[in-house]
Amino acid sequence: MKHFIYPHELDKNDKEKLDYLYNKLTHNTKYYAGYSPNTEFNYADLYKFLQFSINNLGDPFIGGNEMSSHGIECEVLNYFARITNAPKQFSGYVTNGSTEGNLYGLYLARKMYPNTIAYFSNHTHYSIPKNLDILNIPYFNIETIHNGEMDYDLLYGKLQENRDRPALIIANIGTTVVSAIDNIDKIKAALINANISQYFIHADAAFDGMILPFIDNPPPFRFSDGIDSIAISGHKLIGSPIPCGIVLTKKKYVGNIKTLIEYVDKPDTTISGSRNGITPVFLWYAIKRTGDDGFKKIVYDGFAKAEYAIKKFKKFGINAWKNEHSLTVVFPAASKKILTKWNIPTAYGYSQITLLPKLTYPMIDEFCVDMAADIQDPNAKLSSALMY
Amino acid sequence: MKHFIYPHELDKNDKEKLDYLYNKLTHNTKYYAGYSPNTEFNYADLYKFLQFSINNLGDPFIGGNEMSSHGIECEVLNYFARITNAPKQFSGYVTNGSTEGNLYGLYLARKMYPNTIAYFSNHTHYSIPKNLDILNIPYFNIETIHNGEMDYDLLYGKLQENRDRPALIIANIGTTVVSAIDNIDKIKAALINANISQYFIHADAAFDGMILPFIDNPPPFRFSDGIDSIAISGHKLIGSPIPCGIVLTKKKYVGNIKTLIEYVDKPDTTISGSRNGITPVFLWYAIKRTGDDGFKKIVYDGFAKAEYAIKKFKKFGINAWKNEHSLTVVFPAASKKILTKWNIPTAYGYSQITLLPKLTYPMIDEFCVDMAADIQDPNAKLSSALMY
Repeated sequence: MKHFIYPHELDKNDKEKLDYLYNKLTHNTKYYAGYSPNTEFNYADLYKFLQFSINNLGDPFIGGNEMSSHGIECEVLNYFARITNAPKQFSGYVTNGSTEGNLYGLYLARKMYPNTIAYFSNHTHYSIPKNLDILNIPYFNIETIHNGEMDYDLLYGKLQENRDRPALIIANIGTTVVSAIDNIDKIKAALINANISQYFIHADAAFDGMILPFIDNPPPFRFSDGIDSIAISGHKLIGSPIPCGIVLTKKKYVGNIKTLIEYVDKPDTTISGSRNGITPVFLWYAIKRTGDDGFKKIVYDGFAKAEYAIKKFKKFGINAWKNEHSLTVVFPAASKKILTKWNIPTAYGYSQITLLPKLTYPMIDEFCVDMAADIQDPNAKLSSALMY
Repeated sequence: MKHFIYPHELDKNDKEKLDYLYNKLTHNTKYYAGYSPNTEFNYADLYKFLQFSINNLGDPFIGGNEMSSHGIECEVLNYFARITNAPKQFSGYVTNGSTEGNLYGLYLARKMYPNTIAYFSNHTHYSIPKNLDILNIPYFNIETIHNGEMDYDLLYGKLQENRDRPALIIANIGTTVVSAIDNIDKIKAALINANISQYFIHADAAFDGMILPFIDNPPPFRFSDGIDSIAISGHKLIGSPIPCGIVLTKKKYVGNIKTLIEYVDKPDTTISGSRNGITPVFLWYAIKRTGDDGFKKIVYDGFAKAEYAIKKFKKFGINAWKNEHSLTVVFPAASKKILTKWNIPTAYGYSQITLLPKLTYPMIDEFCVDMAADIQDPNAKLSSALMY
């Protein structure tokens, strides 16, 4: 009685397109020095789950969807709840990435305080103003100090001017380029000094949300430090072929957005609706097989390599630096040639490399040689990166 | 020099959890009669791409991201542009599913007409009111007529009352449960009669967007029929282990939302930010290997099976019916036992089966035997489905 999978073969031209893509990705993965995804993952044991149409629709903690991996998703969320000191009554889900996690946190804030104004630094990821525009929330952009952190005096000034309105603060737990961490204690002090009692702090911890839990004496970033929601990426420090992330919040906020999924008679508390059930299994697998000790090793190995890289850069006269808890080393914008070979992001006048396992010591050496050659080449053009 | 993948093995308990999930999904895929995902897919040829951290961040037509499958994504979008008669100047991207596609269409409508009011029928998917709430767009819920279509007289009445405000109409190109198709011609007539010239029609074509292009004389649903944006799911009629979809719109609307991705110096025109690059490759592969003729066969085989199922149901005294262009047969809400065995959604007093390749003739026969036994069982409880 069975059926009907694919009456046609791929033609030669189409096969070549797939080969081209495969070769391009193989090459560029080798020289992927700048961006934050960890490329050292291996989920081959789990490919067999890709024969199924898994769907994690709805609230994972209510679950019961017979084609879902909700049980495993809940274990992943419990893990993140532990490393972010979430309250016992927390809620959340595995997202398609931190843009969705950020949208979710900001949406909950607006449901709590419909009249809110948002505040964030001008080194904040572009998904924040995009999401605020989607949500129709007015906002102020706060200047940064020298290391990319929010200027808390300017924040205080704006809060003070608008003290009649609830405040939504987006704290960068690692900005995109220089990996600066906005200080939650100083943000809370500015709120208190401005006499604002109705506020919501969302932590965009896309990258550093998987660094800070594994270092000694981290700066404040947890629920116990005063945040109300947090977004962390799964495809960055952990690594995943499919962008993903988690968002966590206090359960009390989620009551404001429950809608009923009419055809399964269960509430939805997510943005997505249909959600893939495979990335929760990837994250679960990576967490189990890496362990806290494994993540700690990735982080501290990275710190050591970052120190090595900065020293090496300086030897070549390149003024490299990094923020204290960061795996990202920044330096003045490199040439187009370097950016292209090494897949390096550039903004605010800086280029960056990210000291994940993919970036080995010999690669750092090779990179420095390229940079040095470039500096001595009178024809090397500066990158066209934005200099704001 | 290399590195560090996974210092730990999974323990026995964790291995059992994966086995349990695998067995559950295997069993439930066999009895997956009701929901709209096509489970007959096979992407094993493409698993090798899952070793890479592919990311389709940003506008696929601008592309140039060295870790993306943007070229293949554009081919997928061109395919959908053809089957929906999109204008030459169209825009769009591969989404994480139709909820995101719907959010995108409605967001563009609000950017075009900030003062808009939305109208949709009460058989509309719950993602529409959820997305309208996210976007802060006020809305009216319009009653349906007997077959689940919007009541156009009631729509006209509401439009008339609010004719000073631009209108955003969400047209169901297949409602979730009874697969009713809202008539674009009648919607346009209601707008004209109410004297509203500023309007935006978004088509939620999650399932039927892959049926109507392959039948003769379809009802109006295309850009050439007057829609402004459309969302179609990839994991439904086509089939995919990861929920996905496409959204298409007229290019002129997208200019209103372009934001700059600071660290790659390219504009973003999407909701997602980081987007997986594997589902575009899955969709591309399925489209190439199925072909228009293959999709046509899935659709017409489904119509034949639906007719067979309705006749068989009636023989057992079960009052089953379907809308004209639908692959979904509905019947009065079945018992909990049936819904659980066969994974069947139920709402508005109806249960449904979906006549995709997964649902074979012998399965229809087995289903009817189960239903008949159930009817004669005085202890069988009616489903707890909502009866609104």
